[in-house]
Amino acid sequence: MTRENVKIGLFGYGCVGQGLHDVLNSSKGFKADIVRICVKDRTKKRRISMDHFTFDKDEILNDPSINLVVELIDDADEAFNIVTAAMKNGKNVVSANKMMIAKHFKELVDMQAKYKVSMLYEASAGASIPIIRNLEEYYDNELLYSLRGILNGTTNYILTKMHNEGLPYDEALREAQHKGFAESDPTLDVEGWDAKYKLCIITGHAYGLFLNPDEVFHFGINKISKFDIQYAKEKGFKIKLVPYVGKTSEKTITNFVLPRFISSDKYLYNVDNEYNGIITEAAFADKQFFSGKGAGGHATGSAVLSDISANSYGYRYEYKKFQQGTISNYTRDHKLEVYLRYNDEKDRELFGFEEVSEYFSGRFNKYVIGVVNLKNLYAIREQLRDMDVFIVNTGRKV
Amino acid sequence: MTRENVKIGLFGYGCVGQGLHDVLNSSKGFKADIVRICVKDRTKKRRISMDHFTFDKDEILNDPSINLVVELIDDADEAFNIVTAAMKNGKNVVSANKMMIAKHFKELVDMQAKYKVSMLYEASAGASIPIIRNLEEYYDNELLYSLRGILNGTTNYILTKMHNEGLPYDEALREAQHKGFAESDPTLDVEGWDAKYKLCIITGHAYGLFLNPDEVFHFGINKISKFDIQYAKEKGFKIKLVPYVGKTSEKTITNFVLPRFISSDKYLYNVDNEYNGIITEAAFADKQFFSGKGAGGHATGSAVLSDISANSYGYRYEYKKFQQGTISNYTRDHKLEVYLRYNDEKDRELFGFEEVSEYFSGRFNKYVIGVVNLKNLYAIREQLRDMDVFIVNTGRKV
Repeated sequence: MTRENVKIGLFGYGCVGQGLHDVLNSSKGFKADIVRICVKDRTKKRRISMDHFTFDKDEILNDPSINLVVELIDDADEAFNIVTAAMKNGKNVVSANKMMIAKHFKELVDMQAKYKVSMLYEASAGASIPIIRNLEEYYDNELLYSLRGILNGTTNYILTKMHNEGLPYDEALREAQHKGFAESDPTLDVEGWDAKYKLCIITGHAYGLFLNPDEVFHFGINKISKFDIQYAKEKGFKIKLVPYVGKTSEKTITNFVLPRFISSDKYLYNVDNEYNGIITEAAFADKQFFSGKGAGGHATGSAVLSDISANSYGYRYEYKKFQQGTISNYTRDHKLEVYLRYNDEKDRELFGFEEVSEYFSGRFNKYVIGVVNLKNLYAIREQLRDMDVFIVNTGRKV
Repeated sequence: MTRENVKIGLFGYGCVGQGLHDVLNSSKGFKADIVRICVKDRTKKRRISMDHFTFDKDEILNDPSINLVVELIDDADEAFNIVTAAMKNGKNVVSANKMMIAKHFKELVDMQAKYKVSMLYEASAGASIPIIRNLEEYYDNELLYSLRGILNGTTNYILTKMHNEGLPYDEALREAQHKGFAESDPTLDVEGWDAKYKLCIITGHAYGLFLNPDEVFHFGINKISKFDIQYAKEKGFKIKLVPYVGKTSEKTITNFVLPRFISSDKYLYNVDNEYNGIITEAAFADKQFFSGKGAGGHATGSAVLSDISANSYGYRYEYKKFQQGTISNYTRDHKLEVYLRYNDEKDRELFGFEEVSEYFSGRFNKYVIGVVNLKNLYAIREQLRDMDVFIVNTGRKV
């Protein structure tokens, strides 16, 4: 295996871009040059000399000395333009942009084949957890029953603060923003979009289906109340936001993003603050668990550098599950047991509970525990936005 | 990346060999032929036709159609002979033999370079946990502060039974043997040798030092008493056998195998039964945790197959940390806080406690908690075999 001399054109110099720079500077094992950095904001003060920067993306895209484009910007549409242009120009790409990848997954896979280039994106799901590489390399050979985990550091930080310190949601969110974990507009994180994009990327590598994120149900944590936290505590649970993907039959999978009760004997119980954790269940390797930091410039930069390093010896994703085509169907016809905290009986009716095992009605709160069908949740996804409800997957097999 | 057509010569058809066979048969993503299987015992009934077997190792080693030797036998000396001959004949090797690898580590690394072949051995440490690959690929680039974990499924099974069900050591051991986790001679497992061999392999990939296992202190669980378990329970701990390797200064590391107290908020607390778990702490990726099955034919066979698969596209270990040579020293001059349960004050004196924070003397048991130097433990390693003592690393930083 010969290592190519890596000449990087970097897009974006925010939290992750600077983190990558730090990690690369401290790296003794691996040398790569950042030839040029393209940024948008001409007025922002940078911590290194302006000689390194450009505001014209073509200065990177058309520079034949640059053989790797590292894309670390926020804007998913612009990121897609950059990545597309880079691949057309025969450059390999490393990206951490989960929204961009999830929304254009199949196109990006096709472009890699068409232009004979490689695109790696380990940092896009699970940040410092090498889950994509492990799905590619490790579960190549065997039946993966399911994968679930904590994939969003911001919401996990908020939930940890609420559980451990009794903070109300708004205050915990403000603290997450103060710590730099949450954006000023936290919608993508707290509503579960971010977790869903990551779940879609993982689903592609785990099962070979490139789903449109719009097809996947998600429910976040922005409607959580102190009552929900209190209920979980009394039962010995923590509430975590847990995306899930798994087989429902030989050729069919389902996936969704929902809060979930986690008991103290489970690995995910101790995945707190900005950490992520992923559990896989497979036929031969059985249960495996990975955990690491899910946010922060250095942890994410470290994952980006592992892609840059892998790229330098010609590593590329093979999308084996997609090639095999064993899984060919996606379904939302899937039963789940959930806890629903609600106020209005009319709201509850929309869920179409099939079985109810517990019902509570108090002065200020009501909840019901019972079996619902994922397709019903998906059908009322728009209405859910305006309801005063909170949904938690109990995790019990139904 | 082109996949080579894999023609395997397999040595050994015990638990892992058969597990590999099962996993390979169920693998839809990857094809490899087992051309021939070499076994020792001519009388043993095999579950597949005898046409597949040979008793003459040269039938594999000299067969030019075989391009990969998979070595899964028990006997470390014979394994080394086989692996050496295979490499000399230009064949790549996959092995799961931790004792063989740990005892001949540097020779095996040199032979790979000399004969231009590759040897992979992911299953030799942590079984189904892809720790070696991750150390090679992921911590290539950055400072690894330490690694610790549960690497021996047999002792973890015994400790779990003792803690959860109150079984005495002998009975828990018998149950482990009955379940097939412990050999009829359990010495290598319960005295900590097996964990030490794995630690030495991990140390090579984490820091580039190929240590002679005789240089590394180990203390197992065969002297544990109900009193020790009781003490741990009262304090909210579990006792786990935890090998450790970490930096003591810029260029120096230490490592050892000792039982350790684990509190319930730690990942390793929930690593029970035959599971293994590994925690890494690094400058940028921060803390990461991996867990998976540490014993059993299918879990180990699954790891072996991931090596076979990686070998097919030319993957090889680069031993980057060794090439870099950043870590050049090994020390046992390292302070630890330990719990020592003992009977005889003369035994205790041999430990040379530097500080004592707790002391207990009861009718049947005494214990002391204090700071000892690893070099003292190493100096009395032979005497420890005959002492009625149990040592637990408290894990407190000193």
